[in-house]
Amino acid sequence: MKIKGITITLFSLALVIVIKAEEGMWLLSQIKDLKLEQKGFQISADEIYNSDKTAIADAIVWLGGCSASFVSDDGLLLTNHHCAYGALQRNSAKDSIDYIKNGFLAQERSQELPAIGQNAYVLESVKDVTAEVIAIAKDLEDIAEKEKAIEQKIAQIEKAVEGDREDLLCQVATMYNGKQYIQYLFKKYQDVRIVFAPPEGIGKYGGEIDNWMWPRHTGDFTYLRVYQASDGSGAKYSPDNIPVKPKNHLKIAQTDLKAGDMTFILGFPGRTMRYRTSYSSNWNLNRNYIPSIKEFQEILSVIENLSRDNQDVAIKLANFEAVFNNVMKNYQGNVDGMKKSNFIAKKRAFEQELLNYLKSKPKLQKKYGDVLNQIGTQYALIEKSYDYDWTLDTFQGYGIGVLYRLASKAYDVARERAKPEADRKPEFSEKKVRESIGRIDDAYLGFYEPFDKAMLKRALTKAAALPEEQRIAELDYIIKSDLGIEGWIEAAFQKTGLKDAAYVKALYEKSAEEIEALGDPLLDLAIRLYEPSERKYERDKVWNAKIKNLRGEYIDALYAWKGKKLYPDANGTMRFTYGAVRGYSPADAIFYQPFTTLKGVLEKSTDIEPFDAPAKLAELHQKKDFGKWVDPELNDVPACFLCLGDITGGNSGSAVMNARGELIGLAFDGNYEAMTSDWLYDPEIQRTIAVDIRYVMFITEKFAGADYLLKEMGL
Amino acid sequence: MKIKGITITLFSLALVIVIKAEEGMWLLSQIKDLKLEQKGFQISADEIYNSDKTAIADAIVWLGGCSASFVSDDGLLLTNHHCAYGALQRNSAKDSIDYIKNGFLAQERSQELPAIGQNAYVLESVKDVTAEVIAIAKDLEDIAEKEKAIEQKIAQIEKAVEGDREDLLCQVATMYNGKQYIQYLFKKYQDVRIVFAPPEGIGKYGGEIDNWMWPRHTGDFTYLRVYQASDGSGAKYSPDNIPVKPKNHLKIAQTDLKAGDMTFILGFPGRTMRYRTSYSSNWNLNRNYIPSIKEFQEILSVIENLSRDNQDVAIKLANFEAVFNNVMKNYQGNVDGMKKSNFIAKKRAFEQELLNYLKSKPKLQKKYGDVLNQIGTQYALIEKSYDYDWTLDTFQGYGIGVLYRLASKAYDVARERAKPEADRKPEFSEKKVRESIGRIDDAYLGFYEPFDKAMLKRALTKAAALPEEQRIAELDYIIKSDLGIEGWIEAAFQKTGLKDAAYVKALYEKSAEEIEALGDPLLDLAIRLYEPSERKYERDKVWNAKIKNLRGEYIDALYAWKGKKLYPDANGTMRFTYGAVRGYSPADAIFYQPFTTLKGVLEKSTDIEPFDAPAKLAELHQKKDFGKWVDPELNDVPACFLCLGDITGGNSGSAVMNARGELIGLAFDGNYEAMTSDWLYDPEIQRTIAVDIRYVMFITEKFAGADYLLKEMGL
Repeated sequence: MKIKGITITLFSLALVIVIKAEEGMWLLSQIKDLKLEQKGFQISADEIYNSDKTAIADAIVWLGGCSASFVSDDGLLLTNHHCAYGALQRNSAKDSIDYIKNGFLAQERSQELPAIGQNAYVLESVKDVTAEVIAIAKDLEDIAEKEKAIEQKIAQIEKAVEGDREDLLCQVATMYNGKQYIQYLFKKYQDVRIVFAPPEGIGKYGGEIDNWMWPRHTGDFTYLRVYQASDGSGAKYSPDNIPVKPKNHLKIAQTDLKAGDMTFILGFPGRTMRYRTSYSSNWNLNRNYIPSIKEFQEILSVIENLSRDNQDVAIKLANFEAVFNNVMKNYQGNVDGMKKSNFIAKKRAFEQELLNYLKSKPKLQKKYGDVLNQIGTQYALIEKSYDYDWTLDTFQGYGIGVLYRLASKAYDVARERAKPEADRKPEFSEKKVRESIGRIDDAYLGFYEPFDKAMLKRALTKAAALPEEQRIAELDYIIKSDLGIEGWIEAAFQKTGLKDAAYVKALYEKSAEEIEALGDPLLDLAIRLYEPSERKYERDKVWNAKIKNLRGEYIDALYAWKGKKLYPDANGTMRFTYGAVRGYSPADAIFYQPFTTLKGVLEKSTDIEPFDAPAKLAELHQKKDFGKWVDPELNDVPACFLCLGDITGGNSGSAVMNARGELIGLAFDGNYEAMTSDWLYDPEIQRTIAVDIRYVMFITEKFAGADYLLKEMGL
Repeated sequence: MKIKGITITLFSLALVIVIKAEEGMWLLSQIKDLKLEQKGFQISADEIYNSDKTAIADAIVWLGGCSASFVSDDGLLLTNHHCAYGALQRNSAKDSIDYIKNGFLAQERSQELPAIGQNAYVLESVKDVTAEVIAIAKDLEDIAEKEKAIEQKIAQIEKAVEGDREDLLCQVATMYNGKQYIQYLFKKYQDVRIVFAPPEGIGKYGGEIDNWMWPRHTGDFTYLRVYQASDGSGAKYSPDNIPVKPKNHLKIAQTDLKAGDMTFILGFPGRTMRYRTSYSSNWNLNRNYIPSIKEFQEILSVIENLSRDNQDVAIKLANFEAVFNNVMKNYQGNVDGMKKSNFIAKKRAFEQELLNYLKSKPKLQKKYGDVLNQIGTQYALIEKSYDYDWTLDTFQGYGIGVLYRLASKAYDVARERAKPEADRKPEFSEKKVRESIGRIDDAYLGFYEPFDKAMLKRALTKAAALPEEQRIAELDYIIKSDLGIEGWIEAAFQKTGLKDAAYVKALYEKSAEEIEALGDPLLDLAIRLYEPSERKYERDKVWNAKIKNLRGEYIDALYAWKGKKLYPDANGTMRFTYGAVRGYSPADAIFYQPFTTLKGVLEKSTDIEPFDAPAKLAELHQKKDFGKWVDPELNDVPACFLCLGDITGGNSGSAVMNARGELIGLAFDGNYEAMTSDWLYDPEIQRTIAVDIRYVMFITEKFAGADYLLKEMGL
């Protein structure tokens, strides 16, 4: 990949003092400043990322929400089992074969399964477009107008770069709340296939019980393969497609990994809030995490009731369930962590220090003295309509059910398409609309009518319970109807045409008026909620512009005070992080060692999900049939390990490499004790949890007998 | 103390090879053979126990179920908080002051509380009486008759030694299933007072959640003081009594304890089954532990329902609850441990090895070849009447309620007293009867009528559910009555006189016929169950004699095979055990360090019971006001520590000493991972959990300000 014409702003140039040892999700352009040669690296920054020639970063792949890496020159990818979980679930629902429970191994390439709903994105170039973006807004005074102009400019750049290519994805990412804008161009491959996924008793071993936990024994890996058309384009599945020849692929490490060894990670961390204020933390704690956990519990208990004793339904809802469980445990960890560490109070004390400092510097005081106060005012503003907003958002969320989501999307598309493309919301470009249509069939693989009804009932019941002054009047026609909520839902699901994918696809050909004329009850509900949602969208846009601007000022104030080198908050762009293999102490008198073993896998085994390790693992352990994947110190196959890399959601599947740049594992989790790490890095307790590549290879070779994959990886 | 005229049997002389490093609950007479000087001890075996002069063992005290040690020459005792818990509960019920929750500190001796129901036993002499005991049975052929003769001989010895002294207790203990008999003579002190018990938020910190667990943060200690009459007798409480001047008392260690340091423990371990067969283990697992756990859960849920929102009831039932919880967790740990380790299968494999060995030695085969088989036959026998026996035992147990227990005891006494004293069951000697009468008042401190009724209902309902062929016909008059079980109980509790202690005491003046004539419904129930219980008693006696004999043969067979030095199973007699301070690995990738700290106490604190550490602890930690009790390496006050000593229930409160014989802690628990340790010692995972004496002294000095106690202990 290449970074063209980087505009280094004064801001980023000036930041030269390192913050905390090993904290940081660094931009590719910052790697060279990290003095890696002093930290035990045996390769240079240049070999990790290089704008002019092939480097390790060229083997790193984005899966849209997860990370992965090429491990052969035939497009073979390694990522986490949980990253391929959605595809496994959809393929299982389609084929009525439980690929999650049983795993899947293609004995040869022709057997590989097209991974439904899975794309792979390979970064082609990086370009700093800050100057171009901010120029557009430089004469505008109003912050919301400025922001709108920037948003339009970004959409314009993205569209211009992509042209009409379906296999390109251009994203201009906002760094440091608008101090910097970087354009990332990806090649989008739409034909990704499942090569080898271990059975759930390996790949999801420990399930929700062990999720976020250490010691961990999950073989959280799956092999995919990326295909392209013979003309090199990232076309959709075709039997004629050929494996991608990646610019670079990672080598599997064949030396042992030990505690203390340096490691690094390249991947796509999703979102951190490291530079947020106490107002933001407090709002997220009390107005997001805590109420969300309650809602997740409600949804999960519905899933559990419906799935019990019904394996087909369980498969249909498996991905929903996994996602909700995962996010819920993350939120709970944030709540626990924030409460345990008195997080908000500490943030406030820190801010008080900043305020005291500013007071001592009249010039800075004038510039930044009111910024915290203004951020507080913004949060007070959204507090006023909180119940209304929270409930309205339920109708937009993942937990509203498949049919209503399809209805709402189709009507939104019709309304947006009535505008010139330049005036549309960015997510309604013609290209994005086409992509939405392409996902319609897949959506039904997660559709189960009783669940859909239950989700809609939940949302409407919440709306019915709103206090009068925050009520969503547009829902009165249901809530106050003689049918009642349940009666209305029964009738609506009886009458709606949305259970038919062809009907939904046809909606995308219709104008808003035509959709309104259909009289489809689920569409009618989406139509009724369109106006209030639009009003909220506009309100949010203004609020977001203001808060983005204030957060930028707050970071400026922090910099003026501390003068340290900063990395931008994670935002889904490729980042570099590093740190040694190291255990930690989760509590008084307990030390967690950094390696688990196959023996530990078997010790947890109860034969009951999620601890249902396949019997063959015990046999292999019994016979000490470890191949070359045994660690001489552990005298066993290492299962998972801990290292200090600074990662977050989105890094799942990321390659973890040793000081020589060889693949030693796949990051798949963070530890529970550090779940507030999105807010604050703590090197004492924050760890990356990775599946050891020796376990991956052991399972591939000894458990699955997929020798051809090892050969392909040059082993 | 003195051991007079020890008869060392051939058996014990011959056992000279040590079994496993640091396994063993050694008899006092065996200490000298342990080569302590090679193990880092800085004192000799002679200084630990010496039949001719004062030694450390003279400072060790038995509390009847717990252990303790003198720590001043004014009779000051240190034991566990949970050992004094019964007394604290009874004193709380009597005074309507919650000494459990609030703790208790006597500001001076006159304020010390007579510890209701608590005696202290100081060992005066030890004598091997094997020759005398076995001589009595040498001409008898029938095993049951042999056993009966031995039992009578033992009773006769005990009575002869005690004479009519109320303050003497003589116990002839059976070692190695009858290979050796040792007579222990104790001075019994009946005036024990509570000096200082910390509040529950220290002394029972972590409660049932942390019980059996490491890392542990419980300040499980209480100070008692032993009083005697001015004539030196162990008289009951009198304001004129004076503190005992013990022959010896322990010195509080004032040097730091570190990982790896050698430690030893003297105390009274209750019961182990180290030499049992797979038949016994299997029976205990499936016919004792598992069904008992179910019953404990039932009883605990009754206690919980009754105690909720009623502090007075909670105090009354606190001791029951603690005992049931403790035993239940022990049983559950045994079940988990046995299942996890495939314990029964391993025992069977071990026995198969023995059988194979015996087959290879015709002489041994002839002697021992059938012993396992015969043990199996015995267990098959009790299987036949299992449901009947189990239910009948419910009416004898701790979980039958106070009133029925008093009724049953009083009637049994009347029946036994009708016999010449020599023919009575040993527990019905006149002296023991007097002691029973002395405990009647205390019993009512744990009496709560709804609980009593619920317990009786539980037992009768169990009986009603018995299969016809195992039914207890004597209960038909209740079970098949028109009133029904509940109706009968209501009427019985209405009518009975047993709620009045004077009425109960008067029963002890009556003959069986007089009691029968009373027509008291609870007594009537006891009368009805007398005959079936007697029949079972006789049946059990024969079975026990046979199994004891077979177990003796089995141990002989083991010895013939392995030829190793053995210690007798724990049986409540004083034992010595030793081992280093050491952590352990409870599971893959986890290491438990051997010290917890005050910081760890505070980290667990939630202000909610059982993690309601007093606020003052946090203040002291904040100010680092640790006195001289800070550990320089931990830079904190150590709370608890782990060592390798081999202990079990009964050792609670035992002094843990360093290589110089100074007091470094009080043993109060074993770890959950080793809960099957009563069956099998495993040095990898079995640990003693002790409260560090530095924490005890820190709480005494800094938390309670009881400087006078430190002064008394010479600090």
